[in-house]
Amino acid sequence: MDTLLLTGDDVHRIARHVGLDALMDALIERLTEACATFDPEVTAVPARAGFSYTHPAEGLIEWMPCMRRGAEAVVKVVGYHPANGRSGVLPTIVSTVSAYDTTSGHLQCLMDATFLTALRTGAASAVATRILARSEAETVGLIGAGAQAVTQLHALTRVLPIRRALVYDVDPATAASFAERVAPVAGHVQIEQAPADEVAASVDVLCTATSVGVGEGPVFETTDLRSWCHVNAVGSDFPGKVELPLSLLHWSLVCPDFRTQAHAEGECQRLAPEAVGPDLAALVRDAGRYAVARDRLTVFDSTGWAVEDQVAMELFVEEAEALGLGQRLPLEALDGDSLNPYDFVMAPALQMEA
Amino acid sequence: MDTLLLTGDDVHRIARHVGLDALMDALIERLTEACATFDPEVTAVPARAGFSYTHPAEGLIEWMPCMRRGAEAVVKVVGYHPANGRSGVLPTIVSTVSAYDTTSGHLQCLMDATFLTALRTGAASAVATRILARSEAETVGLIGAGAQAVTQLHALTRVLPIRRALVYDVDPATAASFAERVAPVAGHVQIEQAPADEVAASVDVLCTATSVGVGEGPVFETTDLRSWCHVNAVGSDFPGKVELPLSLLHWSLVCPDFRTQAHAEGECQRLAPEAVGPDLAALVRDAGRYAVARDRLTVFDSTGWAVEDQVAMELFVEEAEALGLGQRLPLEALDGDSLNPYDFVMAPALQMEA
Repeated sequence: MDTLLLTGDDVHRIARHVGLDALMDALIERLTEACATFDPEVTAVPARAGFSYTHPAEGLIEWMPCMRRGAEAVVKVVGYHPANGRSGVLPTIVSTVSAYDTTSGHLQCLMDATFLTALRTGAASAVATRILARSEAETVGLIGAGAQAVTQLHALTRVLPIRRALVYDVDPATAASFAERVAPVAGHVQIEQAPADEVAASVDVLCTATSVGVGEGPVFETTDLRSWCHVNAVGSDFPGKVELPLSLLHWSLVCPDFRTQAHAEGECQRLAPEAVGPDLAALVRDAGRYAVARDRLTVFDSTGWAVEDQVAMELFVEEAEALGLGQRLPLEALDGDSLNPYDFVMAPALQMEA
Repeated sequence: MDTLLLTGDDVHRIARHVGLDALMDALIERLTEACATFDPEVTAVPARAGFSYTHPAEGLIEWMPCMRRGAEAVVKVVGYHPANGRSGVLPTIVSTVSAYDTTSGHLQCLMDATFLTALRTGAASAVATRILARSEAETVGLIGAGAQAVTQLHALTRVLPIRRALVYDVDPATAASFAERVAPVAGHVQIEQAPADEVAASVDVLCTATSVGVGEGPVFETTDLRSWCHVNAVGSDFPGKVELPLSLLHWSLVCPDFRTQAHAEGECQRLAPEAVGPDLAALVRDAGRYAVARDRLTVFDSTGWAVEDQVAMELFVEEAEALGLGQRLPLEALDGDSLNPYDFVMAPALQMEA
């Protein structure tokens, strides 16, 4: 039994073949469907765990597991190292994702998940935003203009008639390069820079996707947002790391992607359980019921839900198989006598390279 | 940055090149050294977690993480599917292990860990046995004669003058084939079959390595063991799955590999914290202090400690690099603009295979 390996190059080929818009659209629809049909008896999603450290530099390596009973277990391992982004050599988020057959334990597929993570995080915001923002929303604010901001804006343009984006980043160069970076997917959107508070106060939909340090949030001060503003808080994903002013959470309907995890490391870590609204699956299932929220302040607390990774991985693997992309490698030692770890010694001599 | 991929074939080539005895010896010495120098401030080992299920068949997929600060995080994913073993097509334990750079999140290496798991489980028993069993021990008992029993016996022959092994398995064919399977590594050991209780009562060192079901243990009834018997309980690794009679634990010095985990899923799950002796690292560090235990009943409660995997992986990667084995693949999408997930769209067109 082989393992399918999909490299970053393979993933890029798939994206070019399918097209970025069609890929984002497919992911938004599949994720919406996965939310609508989500059944915790079928899909098990434990809260992620990981290693965090401050030496030699701030960082985090965590694993995000998700299992569909009788099918596969998907485990994404994601590294978060802000120094990568600052150096400009590596992405802040570096990730791979694996799928294991739950009937045998076999590793079916390993693929790059750096691109997948950015894509699915955008798609998740689009799923929430389509329900919670006014359908005529035209203006997006982006606080934090790094890699995640690119897919946030792209995803939002797929579900709303966005014409203008206001952008802020602590690094002026990152803010300045944003327009060029999103040009391939949001060429029709007028991009302007503005201070963080002005961005927050002037938009129909706001996305925060920053690497703000633990204890250093929020990333803007004003709570004078448009009364119908919908906020996607994407960067809050670690105990003590928060992006939004607390009073904004109090005034808003707050919808976490994954309740347990959001209470542990999202914006919801500052809220009592009873102060938190429906999670993403419940929101999609009862979308009609939450239509009234379009005229009010709403927050999608996006910490990263492993179901998003599972859905995205499935989409890429289907496309890879259709296109014949990827390599197949007999990674595990599965041949021979299953009761004898040493049976290869008795097999015909292998040719040694060395 | 590439990822080193070591397949089962590569691992086998390394084992053939180094030699099974030399490989086991190296692993026993390295693991002893890792125990002697173990510092929880340097090496973080959370208890493993996983998915367990009973449909469509009994199984478990779990992840075992271990991090050396400032170096790498190692995550082994291990599948335990007893139906594999019964079908004879796949090993009961199927596993891969990955190492991630904690300065960047980069996946440095992915390798088969099916063979590694069997090998290091044997080595761990040898480390404990060398301290807790009489140095003149000649007779080993094996209850459960599957894949793990092969490396248990092999490892024990590397540290004790073993001349005779008594073997029992619930499957007579598995018991019958054991002698042939261990011949390459224990050709000098006389192998005999016997009922479980007779095996337990007649040996200097006993190893239990079974797939006994939850609530179906113990795997033998007698507590009339030799008064100096040392027991390696290898199969107990799941809540409710136990191999030893409770009173045997009460009469023995019980040493877990990893205390927290042993209380959750090892033989120690039936013991109060104060009834449990030193863990493997403490045992090695204070080996002299426990010399008196050689004349008494002792139990090594081996649930699987992620440090064993880290040590074994490091050994295989060193050998692979020395021999020039393995493939290097640019698995993650790390090139290009780290702030732009879509920058590949602007790169020169890639050749499409499809």
